[in-house]
Amino acid sequence: MKIKYELKKSEKNTKGRYGILKTNHGDFETPMFMPVGTLANVKTLMPEELKADHCGVILANTYHLWLRPGADTIKKAGGLHKFMNYDGPILTDCGGFQVFSLAKPKDITEEGVRFKSHIDGAELFLTPEISIEVQNKLDSDIAMNFDECPPYPVSYEYMKNSVERTLRWHERGKKVHQNENQSLFGIVQGGEFEDLRKFSALETVKMDFDGYSIGGTSVGETKDTMYKMITYATNYLPQDKPRYLMGVGDPIDIIEGVIRGIDMFDCVHPTRLARHGNAFTRTGKINLKNAKYKEDFTPVEVGCDCYTCTHFTKAYINHLIKCNETNGGRLLSIHNIRFLVKLTEDLREAIKNDKLLEYKEEFIKKYKSSKN
Amino acid sequence: MKIKYELKKSEKNTKGRYGILKTNHGDFETPMFMPVGTLANVKTLMPEELKADHCGVILANTYHLWLRPGADTIKKAGGLHKFMNYDGPILTDCGGFQVFSLAKPKDITEEGVRFKSHIDGAELFLTPEISIEVQNKLDSDIAMNFDECPPYPVSYEYMKNSVERTLRWHERGKKVHQNENQSLFGIVQGGEFEDLRKFSALETVKMDFDGYSIGGTSVGETKDTMYKMITYATNYLPQDKPRYLMGVGDPIDIIEGVIRGIDMFDCVHPTRLARHGNAFTRTGKINLKNAKYKEDFTPVEVGCDCYTCTHFTKAYINHLIKCNETNGGRLLSIHNIRFLVKLTEDLREAIKNDKLLEYKEEFIKKYKSSKN
Repeated sequence: MKIKYELKKSEKNTKGRYGILKTNHGDFETPMFMPVGTLANVKTLMPEELKADHCGVILANTYHLWLRPGADTIKKAGGLHKFMNYDGPILTDCGGFQVFSLAKPKDITEEGVRFKSHIDGAELFLTPEISIEVQNKLDSDIAMNFDECPPYPVSYEYMKNSVERTLRWHERGKKVHQNENQSLFGIVQGGEFEDLRKFSALETVKMDFDGYSIGGTSVGETKDTMYKMITYATNYLPQDKPRYLMGVGDPIDIIEGVIRGIDMFDCVHPTRLARHGNAFTRTGKINLKNAKYKEDFTPVEVGCDCYTCTHFTKAYINHLIKCNETNGGRLLSIHNIRFLVKLTEDLREAIKNDKLLEYKEEFIKKYKSSKN
Repeated sequence: MKIKYELKKSEKNTKGRYGILKTNHGDFETPMFMPVGTLANVKTLMPEELKADHCGVILANTYHLWLRPGADTIKKAGGLHKFMNYDGPILTDCGGFQVFSLAKPKDITEEGVRFKSHIDGAELFLTPEISIEVQNKLDSDIAMNFDECPPYPVSYEYMKNSVERTLRWHERGKKVHQNENQSLFGIVQGGEFEDLRKFSALETVKMDFDGYSIGGTSVGETKDTMYKMITYATNYLPQDKPRYLMGVGDPIDIIEGVIRGIDMFDCVHPTRLARHGNAFTRTGKINLKNAKYKEDFTPVEVGCDCYTCTHFTKAYINHLIKCNETNGGRLLSIHNIRFLVKLTEDLREAIKNDKLLEYKEEFIKKYKSSKN
């Protein structure tokens, strides 16, 4: 069965949407933040910890799993859910972003992308057909169609050609996608060019996907440009399908995205920050390595309902982080993921009460109030 | 309140003992294996995971906590239990082993040991009084008196002087130990010299400690020598006090120790092995990195009741370990600790049924049967 998106409430003053996404592995409410389980695990966390953080859906990386352990191994395991023992919804990306950012592409042709593996330098070739084939084997609930994610900045000409090629790649991907239990999203690109975003959105929607992603907004642009790019795209996306803003996980960006009608977000940010000792709080990011926390026996954030904040103190986490103990990053990962998921919960409430702009204003005032 | 040891059953054919140790943070049955929480955490694991592994008691390292975060910080937190949010029994060592093995001592005098910190090379001075003072601040349930743990081999003369000095250090430690809620163990040394082990045991017992540790058995000797050293010591230890064999965690060594009347064991072995991809099984150690596990969709050990074996496959752990994902070592740490705790559970049953020697024979036959 394909996913079903139910739009439950449109906010009065913005494009904010509260909805429910139904999948073969359970339903979740939107807006929702998705933590990233790159290599079939969210670093340092177990499935039960993701559930305890109220994660509705997680993301896994097609590129990484294609390389290790390989799609066939995961297929033999019975798919990604069984392989990693996660029974909730899983979304896979298409590999495009990783190929272009991590692997340094050698050659982009109409057929696909030839590049070198970031692990051993082996030459590899990724096409729309292979991306779909791999995602089919992973058997995620939601797959992404293959796209080019151009660097920033590129010329208008380059972006126009890229958007057109991605549309042709999308047609090829859709053609080979035959999994009735996996939904397929199209990806809107177009950089900071309003007309190309519009063109990309309209043409992608014509192909009728189960949902729409917006890519290339988080690569090197200013925040204002980023927010504009979201608006350029969401203006042309249908109300009855979910929208996913790829690779965005800054709290304020999530709020701005929701205001512009985004339903889903993913980012490695919360877990990567955590491994470097950083924690989100309502008054801004703090670094737990800071000496001032050495004897601070309060939680990372008073009132936070996560396992970390209800069980441990800043002093303990300061100690673990300073000693390079993995549990420090683990505890902060639990907190940071919960922070972003809770933020999307709050945003849902704000949408229900038509108070999204008030929520944004209050959040930003507090978030930027203190230099931690 | 001090700990209370109740000897419930002596095995008919060996010196094996089944007992219960009552502490201010709960009771546990012996024999028992204790995982090591060096820096106030068992690496990669949370307190709930230790409980789920049926750990009755854990160990923390006085030397490491003295250096980081410092005893005063932990005292301010309300003691080690509160600092690390572990409400079960905690045993602390005296720092002697770490000072002698890790920090390379500069100078051993009657007063104490002058050495350099393994972290920043700072000059430090550890005495019996400081060791007790630090452990008092940590507020563990069971503290160790300060000893010298000589390298192997040393001359008879050196060992005799060392044993005598450790006895004098023990007197000084006992004198300053005033914590009515913390029990104090004496440590029997003496290397491979039967008369020195006997002398050390008898003189230590005369001082009347709450329990007795046997040290220096795992440093470079053959297994036979090690087992002899245990016998030399336990022969002279009272039946009504617990005996703890320090730093021993090999499954067969645990069995041999129990046969000789040991109640408690600790070792970093199960967690360190885990982080390198190794797992204990009833048919021997296996390394999960091995390519033959790439598509082995069975648990690490069929029948094992641990979280890892009831939730994940060898193939998944092989993937995590090969990708250097922390969760690989975490899952194997859960399994390896459970393996050793379960081994001590089995040994308790064998003692109750007077079948310790049969159990040993069967275990060793199976454990050594296959080259994994």
